[in-house]
Amino acid sequence: MTQKVLIIGGVATGTKAAARIKRRNPDAEVTIIEQGAIASYGACGLPYFISDVVHDQKELFSTPIGIPRDENFFKNVKRVAVYTKTRAEKIDRNNKVVKTVHIETGEKKDFSYDKLILALGGIPVAPPLKGVNLRNIFQLRTIEDGLAIKQYLAKGKANQTVIVGSGLIGMEMAEALYDWGIETSLIEMLDWILPTVFDRDMGLILSRYLEGKGVHIFTSEKVIRFEGDENGAVTRVITDKRELAADMVFLAVGVKPNVDLAKKAGLALGETGALQVNDYLQTNDPDIYAGGDCVENTHRLSGKKIYAPLGSTANKHGRIIADHITGGTSFFPGVLGTAICKVIDFNAAKTGLTEREARAQGFEVETVICPGPDRPHYFPGWGNIIIKLIADRKKGKLLGAQIMGQGDVAKRIEIVVSALSLKAPVKEIATFDLAYAPPFSPAMDNIITAANVLENKLNGIARSLSPLEVREKLEQGGDFIFLDVRSPKEYEELRIDHPKVKLIPLGKLQEELKNLPKDKEVITFCQISLRGYEAQRMLEAHGFKKVKFMEGGVLAWPFEMVGKIWQ
Amino acid sequence: MTQKVLIIGGVATGTKAAARIKRRNPDAEVTIIEQGAIASYGACGLPYFISDVVHDQKELFSTPIGIPRDENFFKNVKRVAVYTKTRAEKIDRNNKVVKTVHIETGEKKDFSYDKLILALGGIPVAPPLKGVNLRNIFQLRTIEDGLAIKQYLAKGKANQTVIVGSGLIGMEMAEALYDWGIETSLIEMLDWILPTVFDRDMGLILSRYLEGKGVHIFTSEKVIRFEGDENGAVTRVITDKRELAADMVFLAVGVKPNVDLAKKAGLALGETGALQVNDYLQTNDPDIYAGGDCVENTHRLSGKKIYAPLGSTANKHGRIIADHITGGTSFFPGVLGTAICKVIDFNAAKTGLTEREARAQGFEVETVICPGPDRPHYFPGWGNIIIKLIADRKKGKLLGAQIMGQGDVAKRIEIVVSALSLKAPVKEIATFDLAYAPPFSPAMDNIITAANVLENKLNGIARSLSPLEVREKLEQGGDFIFLDVRSPKEYEELRIDHPKVKLIPLGKLQEELKNLPKDKEVITFCQISLRGYEAQRMLEAHGFKKVKFMEGGVLAWPFEMVGKIWQ
Repeated sequence: MTQKVLIIGGVATGTKAAARIKRRNPDAEVTIIEQGAIASYGACGLPYFISDVVHDQKELFSTPIGIPRDENFFKNVKRVAVYTKTRAEKIDRNNKVVKTVHIETGEKKDFSYDKLILALGGIPVAPPLKGVNLRNIFQLRTIEDGLAIKQYLAKGKANQTVIVGSGLIGMEMAEALYDWGIETSLIEMLDWILPTVFDRDMGLILSRYLEGKGVHIFTSEKVIRFEGDENGAVTRVITDKRELAADMVFLAVGVKPNVDLAKKAGLALGETGALQVNDYLQTNDPDIYAGGDCVENTHRLSGKKIYAPLGSTANKHGRIIADHITGGTSFFPGVLGTAICKVIDFNAAKTGLTEREARAQGFEVETVICPGPDRPHYFPGWGNIIIKLIADRKKGKLLGAQIMGQGDVAKRIEIVVSALSLKAPVKEIATFDLAYAPPFSPAMDNIITAANVLENKLNGIARSLSPLEVREKLEQGGDFIFLDVRSPKEYEELRIDHPKVKLIPLGKLQEELKNLPKDKEVITFCQISLRGYEAQRMLEAHGFKKVKFMEGGVLAWPFEMVGKIWQ
Repeated sequence: MTQKVLIIGGVATGTKAAARIKRRNPDAEVTIIEQGAIASYGACGLPYFISDVVHDQKELFSTPIGIPRDENFFKNVKRVAVYTKTRAEKIDRNNKVVKTVHIETGEKKDFSYDKLILALGGIPVAPPLKGVNLRNIFQLRTIEDGLAIKQYLAKGKANQTVIVGSGLIGMEMAEALYDWGIETSLIEMLDWILPTVFDRDMGLILSRYLEGKGVHIFTSEKVIRFEGDENGAVTRVITDKRELAADMVFLAVGVKPNVDLAKKAGLALGETGALQVNDYLQTNDPDIYAGGDCVENTHRLSGKKIYAPLGSTANKHGRIIADHITGGTSFFPGVLGTAICKVIDFNAAKTGLTEREARAQGFEVETVICPGPDRPHYFPGWGNIIIKLIADRKKGKLLGAQIMGQGDVAKRIEIVVSALSLKAPVKEIATFDLAYAPPFSPAMDNIITAANVLENKLNGIARSLSPLEVREKLEQGGDFIFLDVRSPKEYEELRIDHPKVKLIPLGKLQEELKNLPKDKEVITFCQISLRGYEAQRMLEAHGFKKVKFMEGGVLAWPFEMVGKIWQ
């Protein structure tokens, strides 16, 4: 039986499903309807096209050997019919027909289907602000958007840009504008950047890095309106706290699922507002599948529904849909909310639950912050990375990780992704026989060290405070000794800027013990708080009763500092 | 109670154990005896010291902030007594005393212990060949060895080097000598290089890369003797097949555990010849622990004992020993035989069982070879990696992986390490919510694609032949069409050099079908065999009965080629 499969949307899910359906059932008649001029392009590459890391837009929609993935390619190579510039207007579920219109010619055409796949994508949220339609206020969804931004940048008239919103796209745009040498301000409504990806402690570390690179960051701040000149071009961004001159604005306040067509056809939406699908990506109409940025996902740890649009998930969806349509039984187990971005040579990634999410979901949470070089310090090119792990104190199981720094963040986050997918206990991770050689990692990989320290905390051996907890104690004027045990040289170069800080190098601590009051609270730290931990244990051995080390040391301290922390 | 802990050997296991014992029990009296002049140096960094990637040997035994990890450092910072240049002569188990001698002064000293830790390390195997003691024949164990090699290289008199043995150290030395611009030959007794790490198919790929870089590789070849000049310096290496001029020879035929001292003390050796230890790293004397390169490990998948000396394992051992001595209960679950090396900007890694090992252990084995770019092809700096996965056909579980190429190999091997540690089914890996953004990976990560293809094979959907199977058919003069479905441009640049190869680009295959006999066997391939797979499915759909694709395509073909495959 020839199966007629119709796909609305030809970027990730759509083309992936099409190709696999044809591989599994070469007799299937597969048709893709795509609203844009180009199907199957690397939408995730758009920020890199804008930054000119990718010079030519053609690269985004060509195969690795440079063949454009156009209608001819799909017809000849994939045996899939593609209709571009064709907008689906209505899904007639009773007659199993989709009504379309050509966006240039206005020509109407009906496509019938046995199985329909909705790969409708997401839409950047447009904030309902005064002046939002002024010229040079951009959003990024299509390749045409990318082209418009790049053309404007190439004119050389943009000198001051404001990015509204600090999600992943906002970060990638911050990098692109940095590459263009344009002064950039980032405005975030919530209290720290990437607030849905990182906890505050980690978000602040990223903020400090970006500020070091000259990006202005304004958090807890709302845009009120945009103002323009007589030609209708944006000139100013007015927030609830200040006015910023701007000859370019980039709106990155989020993405929402593109569900209007589906909603009108009576398909069910989930609690997140995205399309509801089962584990096989079927909507409430079993002949209609949906995948990619228009559907919601299940979080593998919490079991809750989340909206987490990502190209990797979209491709997986396409594969599962193709399997199910062609008689397979594979299903989609959900996502971990994994995210990664590179922003001005700083890598930042997250998977699983944040501390905030874990607490909100009622877990008894233990966390650790553990920085360190990603390779032996003698190996040139190493970079520091800071790992935050979040665990379920009761079960000793890992719940999530946030990792950032100039070193190899991606490798460590994937280890955690794998461990979370398989529900590993924290102590299990520390035993992984990870691949060691000096060009790749320290003998004890950072993630093993972090898991070990977390395990020490779970067992009550390591007693520590997070940087945020210490900061709170400082703000409350707490009476304690804030003990930096690094060398004078390190202290000279970079230090926490607070009068309470006392410097006693670890090697001198033993002889200085007599000058420290044993009954006073002591909080020790060093660069990454390995020496800080040793100092704690030494003080305890000498009868000090209230000693803790501050996790992460100077490297993870996201507040006032003297000296430059990231080069 | 003050516990007296004595440690013989101060490199990885020894110093790790010492530091952790002091952290867990600050009252413990911890002493390290080290035969060399320096304790706690980065032995794994020696090849990089020789290549001058690491300029100064001091970097190998300093802390990240440049403090030498000498006796004073251990005394003041770690509160551990270190005796260097001190050789342990005898372990008197009855009296719990170790007798030592200072290697310079000859002074004898007895050290008593409550708990003894043996961190005796490994010794490079010295092959019993005529002329092996000639000058300029080197081995690498100590920092002094590294210094001697580097000093000789710096003289500029080494022009032709022969490396005997192609294990990990041999590879790292090949890179070091390449960096020095010295002509290098590699002699391996077995049939391919790194024979204990890689299967033949993958070993040949690495060979081809190295040959492309000018390294001469002679496999299935045995060194018979070395010849020297009147000054006792090596001049020639005589094998069973040829004579090679050499003004420097590096012996890298393997490492054996340093067990003489322990053996004399009546401690039990295991089947591998290394010290036998339980899960807590105790020898058959419960007061004597052993760890690092002198002990054998249990393979986590096979349960068999293996000798796999590695710095990462040595550090883990040190930690477990420290825990057990101070009342902890953590245990060592064994290793996966993970290994990684960088050799002239090519990365090669392995974990779990090789195909050969898996078959030898009676598994019904399925494998796949799956190459691809490690990032979207539009993102500059991407490199190809080739993944081989090995699975247990009956249980659908992954048994091992070998990954190599110019791209990010380390990240993918760690995903497999994590999956193997947690005994994941192949299909589970394909669902991992890995971290995706263009600077880091393709939307479908290489390891997901590889797992998907393997799953297709396990389910009988993908029918393929490995490069070795195809090569065998070619050698036997098999009657089949060997169909390259790439573009003419790709074919021009790089192709399999065999008269049987027929080129029909995938986009033209449909119209060319009529010229192909339907009853003849067809083996399709492309650059990485994604198009090869599509061609197979297309041919089958048109009534071809015997079609398979060749896994890995041109990129994984390790035999005769026209054109240069790795740049």
